[in-house]
Amino acid sequence: MASSVSPTPLLKDQLDIVIPTIRNLDFLEMWRPFFQPYHLIIVQDGDPSKKINVPEGFDYELYNRNDINRILGPKASCISFKDSACRCFGYMVSKKKYIYTIDDDCFVAKDPSGKEINALQQHIKNLLSPSTPYFFNTLYDPYAEGADFVRGYPFSLREGAPTAVSHGLWLNIPDYDAPTQLVKPLERNTRYVDAVMTIPKGTLFPMCGMNLAFDRELIGPAMYFGLMGDGQPIGRYDDMWAGWCTKVICDHLGLGVKTGLPYIWHSKASNPFVNLKKEYKGIFWQEDLIPFFQSVSLPKDCTSVQKCYIELSKQVKEKLGKVDDYFNKLADAMVTWIEAWDELNPSAAKSDAALPNGPAK
Amino acid sequence: MASSVSPTPLLKDQLDIVIPTIRNLDFLEMWRPFFQPYHLIIVQDGDPSKKINVPEGFDYELYNRNDINRILGPKASCISFKDSACRCFGYMVSKKKYIYTIDDDCFVAKDPSGKEINALQQHIKNLLSPSTPYFFNTLYDPYAEGADFVRGYPFSLREGAPTAVSHGLWLNIPDYDAPTQLVKPLERNTRYVDAVMTIPKGTLFPMCGMNLAFDRELIGPAMYFGLMGDGQPIGRYDDMWAGWCTKVICDHLGLGVKTGLPYIWHSKASNPFVNLKKEYKGIFWQEDLIPFFQSVSLPKDCTSVQKCYIELSKQVKEKLGKVDDYFNKLADAMVTWIEAWDELNPSAAKSDAALPNGPAK
Repeated sequence: MASSVSPTPLLKDQLDIVIPTIRNLDFLEMWRPFFQPYHLIIVQDGDPSKKINVPEGFDYELYNRNDINRILGPKASCISFKDSACRCFGYMVSKKKYIYTIDDDCFVAKDPSGKEINALQQHIKNLLSPSTPYFFNTLYDPYAEGADFVRGYPFSLREGAPTAVSHGLWLNIPDYDAPTQLVKPLERNTRYVDAVMTIPKGTLFPMCGMNLAFDRELIGPAMYFGLMGDGQPIGRYDDMWAGWCTKVICDHLGLGVKTGLPYIWHSKASNPFVNLKKEYKGIFWQEDLIPFFQSVSLPKDCTSVQKCYIELSKQVKEKLGKVDDYFNKLADAMVTWIEAWDELNPSAAKSDAALPNGPAK
Repeated sequence: MASSVSPTPLLKDQLDIVIPTIRNLDFLEMWRPFFQPYHLIIVQDGDPSKKINVPEGFDYELYNRNDINRILGPKASCISFKDSACRCFGYMVSKKKYIYTIDDDCFVAKDPSGKEINALQQHIKNLLSPSTPYFFNTLYDPYAEGADFVRGYPFSLREGAPTAVSHGLWLNIPDYDAPTQLVKPLERNTRYVDAVMTIPKGTLFPMCGMNLAFDRELIGPAMYFGLMGDGQPIGRYDDMWAGWCTKVICDHLGLGVKTGLPYIWHSKASNPFVNLKKEYKGIFWQEDLIPFFQSVSLPKDCTSVQKCYIELSKQVKEKLGKVDDYFNKLADAMVTWIEAWDELNPSAAKSDAALPNGPAK
């Protein structure tokens, strides 16, 4: 509980920044003071012959579609094309413990005092301190400086659970769906909420991939962004899908998911008409998806993320296949994703998660 | 969703302010601009012969122990003495739809811009707008001005659930238990978190009675603050007990519980040594209470708060009676409380809650 006072470690050799893009990465100029120490994994979407410029001085590797096809062979079919879902290829090829992923239209935000926010530092803080999924703390993150557990918080739960995911938020353009964008074209998020909280066990949330960090060793294989974009009937549900899968697996394995700080500045709204076309199937499918994920139960012998994910793929096929044939394809792609993950990460494939289940199962 | 832009109604004929006290109510001077339009119900604890001064110009009724004994007769045994738990007598004698309760060491707080916070107005806003217990909205209260549901939030859940409880927070002295007070005597809460959120269905929280509002018609009979203080082995768990009972009943009936804004300024820390004596049994009992409340299941025919509460009292006796005989006494007092409530509120006793269960049961 006192650990929050110590300075946040940089973790520069333990964290990769994954950026999906189709354009020159000029946005990195603004992030230079915060990102330059880290290794970047750039996943180039769209035309592989296009040259992406990366500002000088950054250490990076870049993969285009040809690279993905070469590295994964037939298994490349599980990686989306012409959709930012392709970013999950970066999670797979990373060899680091932590991943931070950010969109190329996200800039450095300022806190209410006018200070530039080092988003990555806050994510690291979130990931290195425990989560509290089993009981709600009304004063928010009890591990933050100047905070603690309030009266009535059971002492046996104050050690918390290991944190697997840190979901950051966005000032300026909020992450709205197409219908809400259409109805409220001028709405901007100006509310800086100075809090980090754990999403309670058993509660689903809409995970946005714009400003997201996670512990690859704890939850990496669940961070599959699905089949979106080219040749698929749906887009803009890549991060949602990953979030729902990840949350039920975290709940099962006793891992925590946090949301709140840090904010980034989201610079531009995507086209709501284009978004509507991508989203419309998702908007009605999600009415079946949410009850499905709310009722998913994973058996006790699912003791690793991989085992959980394969089991989840079976349930997707069984329960969602009848919603649309797309989910049969997606379930198959989930299996392919795990096979590809284990091929590229042979040591992690063998070991089960050593974590006990949470106390409140 | 657009309703949040309209001005918040005063509800001066629909809301009572309940204040438990043992001293002169000078603290009301500071609240005059906000509280004067309302009717106060003052529950005088301790020596009934002591005269409590109420600043001029306030409309109030005051009940001391003699009044409670006279009004409730033998059923007065369910109302605690020499403990702020006595406040729940005020909930019972009120005839209004809404209750706001506040401690007499709580003052008007200021927001970060230096503006005095009208706590009651924010509570009314919270109670009059729906809650979102079935799915987490990452941008906090979707009904707040300038906010909405984010991408991935199912449209079928955007109507939300009726709000039964609004739990406000505290700047300056945080609501810590005695051990935390002893370890961190100088810790002050200076973090103004500009958010209201729904506590998800299935998640328990530590409800503090210092700055609390609720809809008496929706949840009143569950707001019993238990047996504390004089003649009892425990104190400082009155509001916690009420919160746990209330939350499981709200979850069952499809009602929402919010926490966050508004803040009040909590002026002085109570004595941690005295608190430790009051709390120490609670500190180990709560290790059994939390799993109990996490696993409580109410049958479908419990369609009113009263029926839920009587059923809960049976489960308390059955499951917690073996933890300590105190819980047998408490279970009996829960029944007495409902009998007394129905006696004082004869019309409400007959009607079942008209609310449907939530969609995610």
